[in-house]
Amino acid sequence: MSERFFLSSPPRDGHAVLDGQEARHLTRVMRCRVGDEVVVFDGGGSAWPARVARIGRDDVALEVGEPVHDPERSRGRVTLAVALPKGDRQKWLVEKLTELGVDSLVPLTTTRGVAEATPAAIERLERSVIEACKQCGRNTLMRIESPRGLDDVLAHCGVDTMSFLADGSGDPFDHSLVAGRPAVVLVGPEGGFTPEERAAAEALGATRLSLGPYILRVETAAIAAAARFA
Amino acid sequence: MSERFFLSSPPRDGHAVLDGQEARHLTRVMRCRVGDEVVVFDGGGSAWPARVARIGRDDVALEVGEPVHDPERSRGRVTLAVALPKGDRQKWLVEKLTELGVDSLVPLTTTRGVAEATPAAIERLERSVIEACKQCGRNTLMRIESPRGLDDVLAHCGVDTMSFLADGSGDPFDHSLVAGRPAVVLVGPEGGFTPEERAAAEALGATRLSLGPYILRVETAAIAAAARFA
Repeated sequence: MSERFFLSSPPRDGHAVLDGQEARHLTRVMRCRVGDEVVVFDGGGSAWPARVARIGRDDVALEVGEPVHDPERSRGRVTLAVALPKGDRQKWLVEKLTELGVDSLVPLTTTRGVAEATPAAIERLERSVIEACKQCGRNTLMRIESPRGLDDVLAHCGVDTMSFLADGSGDPFDHSLVAGRPAVVLVGPEGGFTPEERAAAEALGATRLSLGPYILRVETAAIAAAARFA
Repeated sequence: MSERFFLSSPPRDGHAVLDGQEARHLTRVMRCRVGDEVVVFDGGGSAWPARVARIGRDDVALEVGEPVHDPERSRGRVTLAVALPKGDRQKWLVEKLTELGVDSLVPLTTTRGVAEATPAAIERLERSVIEACKQCGRNTLMRIESPRGLDDVLAHCGVDTMSFLADGSGDPFDHSLVAGRPAVVLVGPEGGFTPEERAAAEALGATRLSLGPYILRVETAAIAAAARFA
């Protein structure tokens, strides 16, 4: 696979420009030269073969070929709403959910949550999404949504959406749950959801779902859900 | 859940001894005192409630209660044979496979593999298994086997075992594949299996299996397989 770069704005008339980190990645890390062939993607589902036309001080001009569009996927959209773990585990989580094809990640605000999803943290996560998309060949970015509480997430699901609460006391995952419908899976913090949160989720239609026989770390539960639903 | 400690030898006559890292964890990290109640497990499927009886310089004596044995699981054993990634990704892989219930991990020797499974590396992985078992409530250690090649792994599967090669060109995972039979999933290195390795695996009965629409990192592919089979 050719080296892939993220375009912050789509090509126009066969031309595109890389700037910021992407330009630095192309020139300083990959040491590309004028004439080298790469692939660019816009995060919205399209990719283009491209040729380096000019290397400037802070940007790189490219000539782009015909776009390749991602095929329509038959499954429903998958959203993971996760009480973010701290540090490296957070970065890991985002990388893996992106690779596995999750459509969007909601940082879930919970009573026992430990990591605050500040605007700076969200920006870091978005950068991790881009890095993972470059590496795994995904052309549509996983969306990082604004932090929200469980009630808010569940109250704004579409009527067609299946919603699940990852919980050791729930029924084991069953493949028949994945029926081409959109799905939302809520994953709580290290200490779990409070009884009040659990009750609220069930009142809003979420089904408790066990993701394995042992106590899973936050990021493991989220990745296990992604592997099954996305 | 009470704090859990790993016993390198099972209790005798209601007494057990923690030593090495486990004794240090109990005294220095958890700062337990005589009389404190904990749980000990032997890695073979049993756990015991225990009370700290004496704290020595290098070991801790415990009085143990009646054992709790893991229930028989109805599914077949799951083995992941993985071309180990490097550094932190290796540690992560082992932690996640343990949490998700994989029975054994074979460091897979491949043409394009990057990490050598030296005896020191295997020892570190075994320690990661213990740490993960302490945390996730698992009483049977995930076994880290000796490094082996693909031919050797496949040639020594039981007749009843289903074997799979994680490969983007394979058929998508289908839940009917998990039929209570033992399963072996082979996961190649970053650059993938060579055509020769792929052909050898298929000749030995392995089925190509795609674990998602994108190019997965080694540890992501292994964890995605674990979430589905284990």
